[in-house]
Amino acid sequence: MEEELLKEEDLGQWRRTHYSKEVGPAMADREVVIMGWVSSVRDHGNISFIIIKDMHGEVQVTAKKSEVGEQLFALAKEVKEHTSLGVRGKVRPQEKAPNGAEVVPAEIKAFSVAKKAAPFMTTGKSSPVGIDTRLDLRAVDLRRQQLGSIFRIRQTVVNAIREFLSRQDFAEVSTPKMIATATEGGAALFPIFYYDREAFLAQSPQLYKEQLTMAFESVFEIGPIFRAEPSRTNRHLSEATSVDVERAFADYGDVMALLERMIIHIIDSVKDRNKADLEFLEIAMPALELPFPKYSYSDLIDKLQEAGERIQWGDDISPQVMKSLQDERLNGFYFIVDWPTSTKPFYVKPRADDPKVCESFDLMYGPLEMSSGSTRINRKNQLIERMQKQGLKPDAFDYHLRVFDFGVPPHAGFGMGLERLLMALAKIENIRDATFYPRDIDRLAP
Amino acid sequence: MEEELLKEEDLGQWRRTHYSKEVGPAMADREVVIMGWVSSVRDHGNISFIIIKDMHGEVQVTAKKSEVGEQLFALAKEVKEHTSLGVRGKVRPQEKAPNGAEVVPAEIKAFSVAKKAAPFMTTGKSSPVGIDTRLDLRAVDLRRQQLGSIFRIRQTVVNAIREFLSRQDFAEVSTPKMIATATEGGAALFPIFYYDREAFLAQSPQLYKEQLTMAFESVFEIGPIFRAEPSRTNRHLSEATSVDVERAFADYGDVMALLERMIIHIIDSVKDRNKADLEFLEIAMPALELPFPKYSYSDLIDKLQEAGERIQWGDDISPQVMKSLQDERLNGFYFIVDWPTSTKPFYVKPRADDPKVCESFDLMYGPLEMSSGSTRINRKNQLIERMQKQGLKPDAFDYHLRVFDFGVPPHAGFGMGLERLLMALAKIENIRDATFYPRDIDRLAP
Repeated sequence: MEEELLKEEDLGQWRRTHYSKEVGPAMADREVVIMGWVSSVRDHGNISFIIIKDMHGEVQVTAKKSEVGEQLFALAKEVKEHTSLGVRGKVRPQEKAPNGAEVVPAEIKAFSVAKKAAPFMTTGKSSPVGIDTRLDLRAVDLRRQQLGSIFRIRQTVVNAIREFLSRQDFAEVSTPKMIATATEGGAALFPIFYYDREAFLAQSPQLYKEQLTMAFESVFEIGPIFRAEPSRTNRHLSEATSVDVERAFADYGDVMALLERMIIHIIDSVKDRNKADLEFLEIAMPALELPFPKYSYSDLIDKLQEAGERIQWGDDISPQVMKSLQDERLNGFYFIVDWPTSTKPFYVKPRADDPKVCESFDLMYGPLEMSSGSTRINRKNQLIERMQKQGLKPDAFDYHLRVFDFGVPPHAGFGMGLERLLMALAKIENIRDATFYPRDIDRLAP
Repeated sequence: MEEELLKEEDLGQWRRTHYSKEVGPAMADREVVIMGWVSSVRDHGNISFIIIKDMHGEVQVTAKKSEVGEQLFALAKEVKEHTSLGVRGKVRPQEKAPNGAEVVPAEIKAFSVAKKAAPFMTTGKSSPVGIDTRLDLRAVDLRRQQLGSIFRIRQTVVNAIREFLSRQDFAEVSTPKMIATATEGGAALFPIFYYDREAFLAQSPQLYKEQLTMAFESVFEIGPIFRAEPSRTNRHLSEATSVDVERAFADYGDVMALLERMIIHIIDSVKDRNKADLEFLEIAMPALELPFPKYSYSDLIDKLQEAGERIQWGDDISPQVMKSLQDERLNGFYFIVDWPTSTKPFYVKPRADDPKVCESFDLMYGPLEMSSGSTRINRKNQLIERMQKQGLKPDAFDYHLRVFDFGVPPHAGFGMGLERLLMALAKIENIRDATFYPRDIDRLAP
């Protein structure tokens, strides 16, 4: 067996001088040091093309035997896909290469040589292998172009949310993820051993964000939530990212208006900052008009009954059932408002004029629920009454209820699933591809 | 008993028209609706002053019996501290009031009346009551001026970190908090029931952020970490916020340079955006010069031995022991570099020229550890070797090790405790006051 020429070396004093996007015809004859991983290699006998990918794009390294010498040429021929390396060389204009230029190598330094062939290609808009094969090797999977585009869109969405809420004077908060009491009843919680006690992972920052309106008025949190979701679907995760928003001196109408403007800002930001990604994924952002359509729950039930559906007031409305309405506007974003009080958690405020429905909304995108929000109850006696009606023990909420003796302002808010929104916007089939390392009933690793 | 005039009412159609900061002499004779909570009341017989606090400051409401009529005056007299309310009225210049103007009320609407007196004042730079009394009523405690300033500084610090890292092309990531395997050995982990299996809460995003350099090169995360810290101290939390940074094609020298520039940007931002808070807290940001002083671990041990300390190479260096060096520079930020390899986790890279020390650093601020970082090992065989030396089973890390077959780039990074940094900058005595709802061995609520 021949001795391998491509040895693994330390970074040492080598440093990148340029990113791929900077290597163009204008840089002709300049020396550059580029670094990245090998996204493809093509061997044409006496000439070898190595495509190196870095965070900004791709650059072609062209090793011609007659040009780079026998030793470097032999070494270049050993380079395999996924290898991490650095190349020192001169830029030369080349129409057929990315950005119209290539690098003629003077030195190649392999930092970490790929030992295996990956079970999937990194190019293309989809992968022929199953999602579990990809997830088992997620860090490598994330090198795929498709996921690169999705996660750049995710970054834009998160940044756009922060920008929008900060401009509206919202304070960003962090609420505890280890909690003593189940917020909304207790189903689907992950229990923890908290020193010598039992505790739970927070399903939402609900009660904390409500309390924080006392001091900060308008608060938001973008953080993990945990649900011991027992089902295996394409739209549920056991650990998800929740965008939680709460505002003092506001009701559900105000926060619906806030939420729809936030969605518009998100979509405008993606259109503006992710042009190449949208083009690559061949998707367009939905065209939107304000305000979003609003359907009251009771009206929807009437309409569904008229359309022949066997549905009763008080039932949940399933996406399947909605189809029978044949309303085009139900393909985009819309609100369902004024849900039956009995279907919503204890902290949701019943309407004063009709207490069997409450000041609540769900934001839908087609059949997918994106967000849920409401006006909250801000008085202790009313909260206790609602807890009791829902079979909860007020004693277990002592630490929450006690702050209601000190002037909790009227407030309203919503929670939105970041991965759900991303699914809708980037047309992602499986919610697992909207997060870095998904968790579900079957998957706890990597 | 007299009937109470101050009834609790819903928000209804009332909306705030102005914030406190907008109510000044320039607004004379204009009608405003302000909303907030009552931070103090003064009753002078036929005149009553109510100070209302909102997210931007304070405004004085002046109810003179002869001016507002008997009924409204009687109602104003019933207003108590912490009550949440709205006031409609006219602005009148008043030199002695905040912003040089007061509001003469035409209508007062109480949204939620305080039922009790709080066990602490909301004004002043410190509180005479113990921290547990405050934490038991944390949402009310957070209305205190001191904490208002601290949390505005916290917001600046978080924003400054995001700005700085985004400008350096870092991608913001989210890594799972529920994990199958202990990252750094296994002590001090919180176990979870994960469906039918055992799992743990992540102590750090370490292995995930390292993996993510494969696809994204430069990544950061600001998120919760969980440590089942058994001790009761003023500088440990069971749930803290970690700023985790990892960069490909970089070594520990590069990320130390990054970290110190980040600290400078944070401090400049606080000086610029929190002038009033720094003034109120009577603190100054430290004056800094780049680069921060660097002490090698081995040199420090030599110096400490010369100074008469009984310390051996390989021991940890305690803040107490450092005092004997009487080096002024040890009061500010400084690095301790090149720690013994045996004292650092398996993923830290030993120095090639002297493998008994490793490419590692701690960033200190006086006696407090702020951050810890290193060059990481980027090759599988070396990682396995280090795991075995530290008594870890490589099999348990299969999901991590397998990605090292696909060209993991050389990389380096650090983790920084956000609350620790805030303690140092805002001169906070107890780390619990650097977070919204602290968690420790004794406290799981609120």
